[in-house]
Amino acid sequence: MSVALAQELMARCAALAKISEEPQRLTRTFASPAMRRANKLVGSWMRDAGMLVRADAAFNLIGRRNSTRRGAKTFLLGSHLDTVRDAGKYDGPLGVLTAIAAVELLRQRKVQLPFHLEILGFSDEEGVRYQTAYLGSNAFAGTLKPADLARLKEKQIVKARRRENFLGYAEVHIEQGPVLETKNLPVGVVTAIAGQSRIRVEFHGTAGHAGTVPMNLRHDALAGAAELVLAAESCGLTATVGKLEVAPGASNVIPGKAILTLDIRHQSDARRLAAVKSLRAKSKSIAARRGLKSIWTPIQENGAVLCDKKLTQLFSKCVARRGFEVLKLPSGAGHDGVVLSQICPVAMLFVRCQGGISHNPAESVKTADVRIAIEVLADFIMNVAAVCDRR
Amino acid sequence: MSVALAQELMARCAALAKISEEPQRLTRTFASPAMRRANKLVGSWMRDAGMLVRADAAFNLIGRRNSTRRGAKTFLLGSHLDTVRDAGKYDGPLGVLTAIAAVELLRQRKVQLPFHLEILGFSDEEGVRYQTAYLGSNAFAGTLKPADLARLKEKQIVKARRRENFLGYAEVHIEQGPVLETKNLPVGVVTAIAGQSRIRVEFHGTAGHAGTVPMNLRHDALAGAAELVLAAESCGLTATVGKLEVAPGASNVIPGKAILTLDIRHQSDARRLAAVKSLRAKSKSIAARRGLKSIWTPIQENGAVLCDKKLTQLFSKCVARRGFEVLKLPSGAGHDGVVLSQICPVAMLFVRCQGGISHNPAESVKTADVRIAIEVLADFIMNVAAVCDRR
Repeated sequence: MSVALAQELMARCAALAKISEEPQRLTRTFASPAMRRANKLVGSWMRDAGMLVRADAAFNLIGRRNSTRRGAKTFLLGSHLDTVRDAGKYDGPLGVLTAIAAVELLRQRKVQLPFHLEILGFSDEEGVRYQTAYLGSNAFAGTLKPADLARLKEKQIVKARRRENFLGYAEVHIEQGPVLETKNLPVGVVTAIAGQSRIRVEFHGTAGHAGTVPMNLRHDALAGAAELVLAAESCGLTATVGKLEVAPGASNVIPGKAILTLDIRHQSDARRLAAVKSLRAKSKSIAARRGLKSIWTPIQENGAVLCDKKLTQLFSKCVARRGFEVLKLPSGAGHDGVVLSQICPVAMLFVRCQGGISHNPAESVKTADVRIAIEVLADFIMNVAAVCDRR
Repeated sequence: MSVALAQELMARCAALAKISEEPQRLTRTFASPAMRRANKLVGSWMRDAGMLVRADAAFNLIGRRNSTRRGAKTFLLGSHLDTVRDAGKYDGPLGVLTAIAAVELLRQRKVQLPFHLEILGFSDEEGVRYQTAYLGSNAFAGTLKPADLARLKEKQIVKARRRENFLGYAEVHIEQGPVLETKNLPVGVVTAIAGQSRIRVEFHGTAGHAGTVPMNLRHDALAGAAELVLAAESCGLTATVGKLEVAPGASNVIPGKAILTLDIRHQSDARRLAAVKSLRAKSKSIAARRGLKSIWTPIQENGAVLCDKKLTQLFSKCVARRGFEVLKLPSGAGHDGVVLSQICPVAMLFVRCQGGISHNPAESVKTADVRIAIEVLADFIMNVAAVCDRR
């Protein structure tokens, strides 16, 4: 019964949201004790749905449902179980728990599949811990960059690499934007995931006394950073400075150092790369004019990813069969599918979220929408073999 | 011998700079264990100069040299022993140690004084701990504000209040600016201390996903703060944003909150207050345009203070007697004299510092300049009775 499964899923999201590394808010980062506890709890729900459960060397939680068919390949479902700081309940967990609910629905219907199924609870989509996202899915796909690996304590995560050919990967996720709400639709089919650049920018100036260094002799690192914040905001793309730290950070000392993060996204890689280039030039000109030193360090670079046409068509069919208009939309947010697209076809289904709000404790989804998502995903799984067989 | 005393003073500054609450840099804040250790060491040097030593209830270190004259009043010398974060060796300690060296010089010369002398090592000139400066001297002068006191854990500091009529207060301090260096002079006589406003400004917006919230629907608290940083910089006065904190502070989350400090100084109270008013209006208009909430909290307000004419003339005479041009200059930085001016006449002597750099580990003074300061201060003390007697 999909109604009961949707209600249970909402209760599970609430229970999972209590597993945090901070006392008063939800924060669950890569390889933290909180993540281990979350994996344990979600793993128990996978077992209830009849799956074999393990965590891999990258802290990804993996639930497996074996097919009895000889030589069967594996189809992947999932999302992530890590969160941003002060997160909402649904970004990530909703996709993992929807997959579990869909598998439970198939079990109740006694459906046999001609392929193995795995549900993945990825360990690092948000990138809070090391500021380089997708560590879990990159480890899984074998696409970790040496530079990223060098930043980590957890060197063993390379062992999580899987070398088989997967049939595909499908992910359910909250929209994190206002489009579905505006159109009054419970779910939408994702066409592409925007490309993303993450950059760390440092400005180094000269610390000094806030009362005695004349304004025209200052090299104020924060003032330079403030200019770049405003330049990013007006660059024409989706651009965010989410982090800004000032040193030494006392009210009566001119800032000698300011470190900020830049996050730039767009569906067109060419436009995104042009904006990055232009902001880099801007940071240099700000530094030159103010007598600062600027250091520009690219942290992450993901090209835009097109979702697989056939899998996306199948999602559209399943949505239409439930009687809803099929809305196709791009994703402004990055997802583990970006990484998985390097080793197999990927598809995504968005679920409406209230006010388009995410990365915020106010994240909210409707039980009725979640029910639709579970039904669409179960239909999708039951019909995906035909699409994959034709490959 | 003033040469030996200057050399000893430099060694003492170096020894004192090792007493810190942070491992790799000098940070010594109000009422910290590091301050207690510093008071103990400086107290031992006061004793060596023949003084009686105690700390008052506000953690001010007090060295006293009694006069044998009946009904003698007390003249005050001193500076502060707290520091900013990642401080230099001389801002504060130089003044306390110069006073000790001058007293030692008087002891060697067997000078009898018609007044008691006290050397004060004030406990909170920088205001790092509670962001409200002058706690030590305000407790001493009995001018603590109830609002400031309410912020403190150390309620007993009110007991440090002294109710007697002091003859005056004289302080030696590094210039913390480039004027003496430009004029190639070892010391300068201070005419006034600039007034200062410190304000805490908060911008509250809406946190959200850095990839999915359209730019035109954002309420980015940091972007608002960045505008105010640049407005402060161009307001025409000495204005500094030294601290800026962003929450939640993750690279892929739109900042929902930004908190910054404003520090505004000028010799003219009218011009300073006009600038504060204009920046307050600016913060409101920024918030209104961006759909943010702004909270403006005045933390501290000190009017400009004129130094006492007679004491300042005496300092000038003593400088001239050593053969140097008398440079009179205002102080852009605040000092404990601002507070002491409420209970007695004050005067200040500046010592050249390299590059005008202070609030920075690179702070540097010349031993030869320190020697001049010791001699000028000793001369000043020997002659101050005549000035004070005439009152």
